[in-house]
Amino acid sequence: MLLTLADGPLRFSGLRQLIGSVTPKVLTSTLRTLERDGLVQRTVYAQVPVRVDYELTDIGHSLLGPMEILRKWSESHASKVLQARDEFDARDDLIRS
Amino acid sequence: MLLTLADGPLRFSGLRQLIGSVTPKVLTSTLRTLERDGLVQRTVYAQVPVRVDYELTDIGHSLLGPMEILRKWSESHASKVLQARDEFDARDDLIRS
Repeated sequence: MLLTLADGPLRFSGLRQLIGSVTPKVLTSTLRTLERDGLVQRTVYAQVPVRVDYELTDIGHSLLGPMEILRKWSESHASKVLQARDEFDARDDLIRS
Repeated sequence: MLLTLADGPLRFSGLRQLIGSVTPKVLTSTLRTLERDGLVQRTVYAQVPVRVDYELTDIGHSLLGPMEILRKWSESHASKVLQARDEFDARDDLIRS
């Protein structure tokens, strides 16, 4: 979510498009949590139809670096983690059967 | 959890002591998730009483760097995030009252 907002403000619909598989309910709840934590700023424009923008605050921007490092780690270790899960589940099935 | 295991293997009781405010149930569940992801290795020693050690795998070790960066970020931004939450909750109370 934070990485999605890295390049600038987005509207709710724009965020949904970029993130993909997320329900509006979950997206709203996540945005609210990020707003409460001071990482995302929500701006309502009094126009018809009403426009709502979401953008990173300074604190949100400061978290981009650490998040990017974590994203890179995930990318390079995803296959190993998935393999470990498969092996664990196979052992687990064996014990339970 | 991962950072707690950074210095070497620990037994369940040792982990509980170092982590502090966590119930045995939550700790067991977290360890199982980390074991399933291949980040933590669980070793059972056949002795009386039985001894169970938890230690980081190579993948677990590789996540220490990113986690440490995230920990440092949290430490230096905690007060700002807590302040943002207070302000958000105060606004929220105002809207609902």
